[in-house]
Amino acid sequence: MIETPYLLFLGDAPDGLAAKVAQGIRDWRPDNCVGQFRMEGCKADLKLPDMTLAEAKAAGAKTLVIGVANRGGKISAAWKKVLVEALEEGFDLASGLHNLLRNEKDLAAVAEATGRTLHDVRIPSVEYPIADGTKRTGKRVLAVGTDCSVGKMYTALALDKAMQEKGMKSTFRATGQTGILITGDGVPLDAVIADFMAGSIEYLTPDNDPDHWDVIEGQGSLFHVSFSGVTLALIHGGQPDALILCHEPTRTHMRGLPGYALPTLEQVRDSALMLARVGNPDCVVVGVSINTQHMGEDEAAAYCAEVEARLGLPTVDPFRHGAGRLADALAAV
Amino acid sequence: MIETPYLLFLGDAPDGLAAKVAQGIRDWRPDNCVGQFRMEGCKADLKLPDMTLAEAKAAGAKTLVIGVANRGGKISAAWKKVLVEALEEGFDLASGLHNLLRNEKDLAAVAEATGRTLHDVRIPSVEYPIADGTKRTGKRVLAVGTDCSVGKMYTALALDKAMQEKGMKSTFRATGQTGILITGDGVPLDAVIADFMAGSIEYLTPDNDPDHWDVIEGQGSLFHVSFSGVTLALIHGGQPDALILCHEPTRTHMRGLPGYALPTLEQVRDSALMLARVGNPDCVVVGVSINTQHMGEDEAAAYCAEVEARLGLPTVDPFRHGAGRLADALAAV
Repeated sequence: MIETPYLLFLGDAPDGLAAKVAQGIRDWRPDNCVGQFRMEGCKADLKLPDMTLAEAKAAGAKTLVIGVANRGGKISAAWKKVLVEALEEGFDLASGLHNLLRNEKDLAAVAEATGRTLHDVRIPSVEYPIADGTKRTGKRVLAVGTDCSVGKMYTALALDKAMQEKGMKSTFRATGQTGILITGDGVPLDAVIADFMAGSIEYLTPDNDPDHWDVIEGQGSLFHVSFSGVTLALIHGGQPDALILCHEPTRTHMRGLPGYALPTLEQVRDSALMLARVGNPDCVVVGVSINTQHMGEDEAAAYCAEVEARLGLPTVDPFRHGAGRLADALAAV
Repeated sequence: MIETPYLLFLGDAPDGLAAKVAQGIRDWRPDNCVGQFRMEGCKADLKLPDMTLAEAKAAGAKTLVIGVANRGGKISAAWKKVLVEALEEGFDLASGLHNLLRNEKDLAAVAEATGRTLHDVRIPSVEYPIADGTKRTGKRVLAVGTDCSVGKMYTALALDKAMQEKGMKSTFRATGQTGILITGDGVPLDAVIADFMAGSIEYLTPDNDPDHWDVIEGQGSLFHVSFSGVTLALIHGGQPDALILCHEPTRTHMRGLPGYALPTLEQVRDSALMLARVGNPDCVVVGVSINTQHMGEDEAAAYCAEVEARLGLPTVDPFRHGAGRLADALAAV
């Protein structure tokens, strides 16, 4: 569990896209952000107060979160200076970088000397159990996709927000690095050892109130041959009561797999539902989330209407249309 | 890759079952075994020559394989004495124990000083790639089960043997600890990190002759909620041309999961085939392997005949009937 609130470190981001992790935190958990820390030449701007480490500390920030990708796969000396000072000022550090903070000898030594914590969210910090399949109380919804990177995390976050706005009880459950940094907690599923994948998701979504929903971030796709095992572990470990199908209509092949066509929404619906019912015989598919970022307004509306008629399920782009109809569909389960 | 031939270490096994790993090596790769090493009080006997370390060394043995389970989850002082002497005599050590050899300070130090290798086959020794789904040359068959521990490894080993007896080109590809110790090579799939599971199986079953078959050891089951993700990674990483269904008919619930019924063979056939065709559209189901160890001779024959008629596929218990008919079915693919 990463302590909040955060000071968001944007470093020397060459553009806004490089700081998309910080942008995600700012968009979805603005209350977690007291300000941003930008270095000389930083081209990203989250429209948060620019703060020094001391100012952020005075404003209550507990953790400096690296919300920017590093260039060239190493942590530069200029970054290091800030990170070491942050530890000395009493901040924990959190990072989703491939290079682990704990493998940097200076950071590890200063963290130990100052008693601060280095959170490398790419790797598990917990020894997860093997899944035991016991039925848990409370409800769970999982986003399943036709492909990787079609908007499953966005859908889950938007759904969680819509549910809370309607007064429903819900918790977004992160299963990837960005989601973990946004919420401060979760399971980095792609880094979990095979035998413990489903168990890590049981751990992430424990017993809860009967009317509480865990909104579980999906990963991969049953039809993506590189990562499908991760997806099935989510379906079985998550024990979902409801599935939401996610799709990006303009993609010409599976991400990273030229020659592999995308499955149809019907194929994903049928295969995911059949497998989900092994763990939860009452599981249903409640809606469809379409990522229409590469479509015009009219085209997007027409596409969603066509899918809605074809599958007989509420179909929205949560970014354009909000996730309210998906939340309503869950409320009716 | 573990160097062969082996001296099989049976330690102080309280009975034959405790030495089942050694028994598997002796049954399936007798040419890999020069002898057995038994300590005072050992109740297991593989009917191999009893040898001292020096005698086995003189007979050409390269590796001392721990073929017995340890009691109480620790490596005893009596075992240690033998293992240290073996390193000093020039043997490598190989083990599938949960306690890793490399974590024993004395063994690690002696291995380093003597230049010998400690093979802990429970954990990967390779950095596997992420699967890229590229079509590989050669053919592959995968055993898929209704449940865990229904005889998938046995089926694959028997099939490999039957194929070789018929002059077909085949290689058993181990994906678990026992299989790795039997053959000296393989992927400990349950210990691989999630993102690299399918890639590890691509690595295990590379391009080969067009008429060569990799016989891939299955793991878990699509219908076992604890381990299904591992099974799907095998189906997608293995890119199988053929599937063999494995079943144990007397089981009353999924292994370790009271309350979870076994799927039917038809459910496993349909779901595994649908998912396998994502990676290989030409995949077919060629036969059924039934583990009839808890049935009488007549009952076993009647059960296999019933399944054969129902599914229209050659159905055998490889232990009772041999795997020849399954090999013939593969030859016809």
